[in-house]
Amino acid sequence: MDRSCASADLFAPIDPDFREQACRLNELFDAQSVAVVGASNSPTKASHHVIRTMQDEGFEGRIFPVNPSEDTVLGLRCYPSLAEIEEEVELVVVSIPTRFVLSVVEQAAARGDVGFMVILTAGFAETAIADNVTLEKQIVDIASAAGIRIVGPNCIGVINPRTKLCTGFAPGLTLTPGKIGLITQSGALGGAFLMACGSQPSPLGFSRFGHVGNMSDVDIVELLLCYAGDAETKAISMYMEGIRDGRHFLRIAREVTQEKPVFVLKVGRNALGSRAAMSHTGALAGSDRIYDAALRQVGIERILAFDDLVDVSKAAAYLPAPAGNRVCVLTQAGGPGIIAMDEIGHEGSLCLAPLDPSTRSALEDLLPPMAMICKPDGYIDMTAAAMADVHARALQIVLDDPNVDSVVFITLPPTFLPAMDVARAVAPVASAASKPVVTCFMHGHAMLEARAHLEHLGVPTFDAPDRAARALIHLTHAWNHQSKQTGGSR
Amino acid sequence: MDRSCASADLFAPIDPDFREQACRLNELFDAQSVAVVGASNSPTKASHHVIRTMQDEGFEGRIFPVNPSEDTVLGLRCYPSLAEIEEEVELVVVSIPTRFVLSVVEQAAARGDVGFMVILTAGFAETAIADNVTLEKQIVDIASAAGIRIVGPNCIGVINPRTKLCTGFAPGLTLTPGKIGLITQSGALGGAFLMACGSQPSPLGFSRFGHVGNMSDVDIVELLLCYAGDAETKAISMYMEGIRDGRHFLRIAREVTQEKPVFVLKVGRNALGSRAAMSHTGALAGSDRIYDAALRQVGIERILAFDDLVDVSKAAAYLPAPAGNRVCVLTQAGGPGIIAMDEIGHEGSLCLAPLDPSTRSALEDLLPPMAMICKPDGYIDMTAAAMADVHARALQIVLDDPNVDSVVFITLPPTFLPAMDVARAVAPVASAASKPVVTCFMHGHAMLEARAHLEHLGVPTFDAPDRAARALIHLTHAWNHQSKQTGGSR
Repeated sequence: MDRSCASADLFAPIDPDFREQACRLNELFDAQSVAVVGASNSPTKASHHVIRTMQDEGFEGRIFPVNPSEDTVLGLRCYPSLAEIEEEVELVVVSIPTRFVLSVVEQAAARGDVGFMVILTAGFAETAIADNVTLEKQIVDIASAAGIRIVGPNCIGVINPRTKLCTGFAPGLTLTPGKIGLITQSGALGGAFLMACGSQPSPLGFSRFGHVGNMSDVDIVELLLCYAGDAETKAISMYMEGIRDGRHFLRIAREVTQEKPVFVLKVGRNALGSRAAMSHTGALAGSDRIYDAALRQVGIERILAFDDLVDVSKAAAYLPAPAGNRVCVLTQAGGPGIIAMDEIGHEGSLCLAPLDPSTRSALEDLLPPMAMICKPDGYIDMTAAAMADVHARALQIVLDDPNVDSVVFITLPPTFLPAMDVARAVAPVASAASKPVVTCFMHGHAMLEARAHLEHLGVPTFDAPDRAARALIHLTHAWNHQSKQTGGSR
Repeated sequence: MDRSCASADLFAPIDPDFREQACRLNELFDAQSVAVVGASNSPTKASHHVIRTMQDEGFEGRIFPVNPSEDTVLGLRCYPSLAEIEEEVELVVVSIPTRFVLSVVEQAAARGDVGFMVILTAGFAETAIADNVTLEKQIVDIASAAGIRIVGPNCIGVINPRTKLCTGFAPGLTLTPGKIGLITQSGALGGAFLMACGSQPSPLGFSRFGHVGNMSDVDIVELLLCYAGDAETKAISMYMEGIRDGRHFLRIAREVTQEKPVFVLKVGRNALGSRAAMSHTGALAGSDRIYDAALRQVGIERILAFDDLVDVSKAAAYLPAPAGNRVCVLTQAGGPGIIAMDEIGHEGSLCLAPLDPSTRSALEDLLPPMAMICKPDGYIDMTAAAMADVHARALQIVLDDPNVDSVVFITLPPTFLPAMDVARAVAPVASAASKPVVTCFMHGHAMLEARAHLEHLGVPTFDAPDRAARALIHLTHAWNHQSKQTGGSR
């Protein structure tokens, strides 16, 4: 990405053909007939897990294993070649040795009904060997002439958790429908993200997953525009190493961020990371400062840590947009409250909510005498003397204050106050709020049941107070950008 | 802490009386006879949980409940007052209303055998009400005249997981002996830390825990010196809001960091955090920049996030000291590897290990052809084609290279490679190493069994690659300081 990224052509209109192509990718995610070339009964093969995951999860469509050496695969009739399948095939998943891929693409082209191919096989342009690069280009040319879009090669492809379409897999992966669309330039990172989502106190679902590998045809920019148009996708999270055409990406991103929050973990932040990224996907990372400025200019919220990408995705999936950046920190424990305050103060873009005098006096009436109310203003330490109902009523009081745009809620229920009591009291208040409430129930295994209860009702919980605050900060940035662009209407 | 902190009197010798007093605090942690004043059969009372935790965990010593209204508490004979206990009482734990505390201190003083009192009760100097401040001072004067040391008031006190002495409690708390000494200025934060340690894939034990509340007598500085002399404590982790005598603290810290790594989560990093800290413990946080410089000068490794304090404590508990700052990043997955590289490059104090040519050729012989070896030097992407034994052998090869001081090891075992197979292969290599190896098995529930196996054998695992790298960076800083001070001998 060079300096000209930041220039005026970001505002150039998007090519209508490109928009139509991106829109057509929705058919890929909705495919109901899938051939798996290289299908195997051996659990050491990727293709085996592709089919098994769709079977286990209950894919609604039809699966056609293709392998000349098998009669059945995982109980399904297996076809010797693509040509033998009499029914319609919308999507072909390819998991065979590199040298056989070209002929499978020719067979797919010859059928006339195939719209998409996901090529899992590696060994193409990413090797930087001339013959392999050429082979990849030939494949794309043949597919393109037949109107087939290629995802990959060298990828784990796409997942739609609603239909249970899944060309990728990861240990313990379950396909929970949700509101986050993930786009990743690393299959491993994408898999780890899904496993992290599935391991939250209540599994965090997703709407779409896409790993596009070598991006020989479909790339992350096109996926971004596709997700923007998907009604189930409320926010988009990306893992990004680098892209060929920075201007094109930024132009699309500028439009998409007006519709939905976009969070990007962009790596290659320095010389070490860039050089590792180059050896991974050949990404020319370019100057990180230019990237950083360009991402900010188009309204992408940049994320710096893996955990933070999971955290902000959870916040974006569950929470409404904040109307502004005035946050109230409501804590039941001093130390954890200070840690959240440090995080907010360090980042600097949120300010503490100047509480209305009526809010303050309502809190004084409610809270135990040792409570610290508005020291400083907008910060309330209820102390460990606060029982479950006091937690809930204090939260309602601060949410009712028109000067409060969002709340960081922290508690460490003492032994004699069951965490589930606090969760049951707080969850209805937080989930009914029209303002975002991020919560932190400290800590560990003892809080998992309470956290699951909250998340099940749409109230996100975070592992540490600073992480809760950071998720809120990122969320507020993303929505602030949008409200600026759209004049506050959302 | 004012500017003079950084002046030459940091090198003044430590007062021998103070050193002796700090050393005597070991008797507090080793107390075998404990009276609990305010003992109750009601599970809503703190004192109830103090006794129950010690009973459940198997405290080796004797517990004497004291409460004039009860005959027995939790099956133990209950005494009407301290005076009635015929046997020796080394430690008195006090959990009664504020106004009765003074007379209990007088009773304890009258006995002649009490060495320590832990006063859980709040409502003293922390209220900033003149009468309460005076009361706290009177208590300390009476205790001091009788040779009794006071911990608190307004605290959860001390824990020794070896003897199961425990004056504090937290939901789900288990007392696992280990090598980390914790000192905290927030009971909640301390409790959360212990709960976090107990919730690791394999519970992370600790050697000592101390929350000293108002620090009317025993303070965090004295605990620091006490822990320095405890043979079980390998490293010290602290949560700190502020202290009265910065120079005194730094002088002690300068000595302690020559013995053991000291990690401090010092809050009040900015105006918001400082003002919250002031309302919590009255800590005058002072200029954070001066704190930061002073902590660095005396060799304290500053930690900025709650998760990081847990992570570095785990690293310090399990790992040997690195001989230098040359790190090798050995990953099986590109994206996660780049994230670790970004973290190392961002911080900047570690450098990639310049691998010996023989290491490189051994890796070339071992690894699959698509592996990226030393692009850049010191970074190895084994790729997902690496099986369990290849993980282990590659780790052994880089550990054997004299140019490598430490290793970040990352893997995301694919579905067809059970994570436990990788863990079983890697654990013996990593645990036998004389160099620190931090590991990241991505991700979530599916990796917990493998991570538990590794940690059980002393190999720390971390939730994300950047967190593994950061823990190693902090650990290397702490040991680097020590080797500079001691001329490399350790």
